[in-house]
Amino acid sequence: MRFGFLGRRLTDALLRRRAFGGAPIARLVLVDRVVPPGSPAASDPLVDLVHGDVVERLDDVFAEPVDVVFHLAAAVSAECEADFDLGMRANVGATRALLDAARAQSAGGGPTPRVVFASSLAVYGTSPGLPLPAVVSESSLPLPQSSYGTQKLVCEQLIADYTRRGFLDGRVARLMTVAVRPGPPNAAASGFLSGIVREPLAGLPATCPVRPDLRVALASPRRTVKGILRIAEAERGVGPGRLEGPLPVNLPALTVSVTEMLATLRQVAGDAVADLVTVTPDPAIEAIVASWPADFDNTRAAALGLEPDPDFLSLVRDYLADHPDACVFRSGG
Amino acid sequence: MRFGFLGRRLTDALLRRRAFGGAPIARLVLVDRVVPPGSPAASDPLVDLVHGDVVERLDDVFAEPVDVVFHLAAAVSAECEADFDLGMRANVGATRALLDAARAQSAGGGPTPRVVFASSLAVYGTSPGLPLPAVVSESSLPLPQSSYGTQKLVCEQLIADYTRRGFLDGRVARLMTVAVRPGPPNAAASGFLSGIVREPLAGLPATCPVRPDLRVALASPRRTVKGILRIAEAERGVGPGRLEGPLPVNLPALTVSVTEMLATLRQVAGDAVADLVTVTPDPAIEAIVASWPADFDNTRAAALGLEPDPDFLSLVRDYLADHPDACVFRSGG
Repeated sequence: MRFGFLGRRLTDALLRRRAFGGAPIARLVLVDRVVPPGSPAASDPLVDLVHGDVVERLDDVFAEPVDVVFHLAAAVSAECEADFDLGMRANVGATRALLDAARAQSAGGGPTPRVVFASSLAVYGTSPGLPLPAVVSESSLPLPQSSYGTQKLVCEQLIADYTRRGFLDGRVARLMTVAVRPGPPNAAASGFLSGIVREPLAGLPATCPVRPDLRVALASPRRTVKGILRIAEAERGVGPGRLEGPLPVNLPALTVSVTEMLATLRQVAGDAVADLVTVTPDPAIEAIVASWPADFDNTRAAALGLEPDPDFLSLVRDYLADHPDACVFRSGG
Repeated sequence: MRFGFLGRRLTDALLRRRAFGGAPIARLVLVDRVVPPGSPAASDPLVDLVHGDVVERLDDVFAEPVDVVFHLAAAVSAECEADFDLGMRANVGATRALLDAARAQSAGGGPTPRVVFASSLAVYGTSPGLPLPAVVSESSLPLPQSSYGTQKLVCEQLIADYTRRGFLDGRVARLMTVAVRPGPPNAAASGFLSGIVREPLAGLPATCPVRPDLRVALASPRRTVKGILRIAEAERGVGPGRLEGPLPVNLPALTVSVTEMLATLRQVAGDAVADLVTVTPDPAIEAIVASWPADFDNTRAAALGLEPDPDFLSLVRDYLADHPDACVFRSGG
């Protein structure tokens, strides 16, 4: 498991439950270049921390038989658009190395590992003459309009083939834009969808680089982690609660416009906070984010018991509850 | 250009025309492990023969600026199913190396090469609960059921992204099953669709490994080469004769059942020849070939002026005309 923001949330969830699929967790191996020393995981006896690049440390990760691998995002969208080779290496190359390590385990007589891969709504896209369907489902044709989306889609295809061949048991969760993310801005094109809430709540100015009527598909960190875990734990088969067939699962989407997001911020935190947001369109960012779908048919996720967040207010309240120290606004502004 | 069967046919066509897109061809560089010494290309002053693995010889191929690259099939379907690593190396690895060489040329200030890639109907597939649409078009969701199909689809996605970024001008022709192919059987799962005609016409027994009511999508070598060339030469844009948008082009398909194919063989060559075919289903072959679509909406190809072969009789007559020495049957049997 990589130890970014979602990795940390997922680790916390696993350490709270201390079980996976009904069986106790014997060991949790966390791999990343940087593992924050202060996190609960650092001192938990279940946890092995492996520092370094995941590709270079695969021998350590697979030193003991691995039952489940969570492979979360590596290089993010605007980063991959700015540095093509980085994205190919970090997203495609690292995933292939991981898949081959998992395959080597099963080929060597070890358990067939479950590999849970975080893909993205960025596999979808619009292009002139090729509008998105009114409602996107897993049967819709992906048409990525970013190198990040392409790389995620390539990994999805490889995971489907490794799974079909029995090398591993791959499961793909396509993540919506996760909001509200804490911490400093990252290089995701969608980063502003957290920033326009997080920064004003911290008393800082924020820029919205898209036209405010743009509609987007969001999910809270809580629901995102819950969805990844549900897809990871589900038994395969047909019927409620089962993971059916070879397609990825699009995590449930809350569809809102940026205008609605800003109105909710104003409602929660007042005018002084909301007025910290400036709209200054950035064509490069808007081109990526506007190519993504906003409206999803979430039947496949619903069959696994997954529901979208009810409204954007709930996402803001989640953030305030989880990160009170990051917020400085005063009620009433 | 690789110098397999289709590469040879394509080379012959280019050497006859001695022009591409209205401009004279200055030089034709042919790359493959084996280049047959007897072919017309071997002695044509336009031709440079480069022997060896395409990945190892890329520096020679791109020693002078390249305007157009034709990248035809490498490892075939049953081969990739039998040897996964071979398929990944020959199909994905070699294509990536080629794309990066093309990108290096444009990044270095040279011309932006046109890269024409032969993909396959094997990117499509059925899976339990996920039937193919009644008619497949380029907007249908690919769902490969073979490693070969997966590898072709991965290359398609990379080519689309390299094209979107302006590294090269990629064009993807999805080939139907090419029949009737000459020469010894190859390791393609679809190879029997040539073999059940070619072998009996040569006086040899042949095995049909699928149930005869199976319907398949065929194209003659002539129409396949014509289609590849048309997609390669087309100007991009909107309107008749133009290559519109980022999607691949499915080459036009002649849809026939194996029963119809065998009846045509009987009609052309008589009972003694047709009786050389034995039906002995092979589940591994049938699983691959039956997962492929047979019915296509060829609107996109038609907009480029491409039409399917009229009937299977025409494919048999093409073969008889092109390879008279390979046929020993006597009319009337």
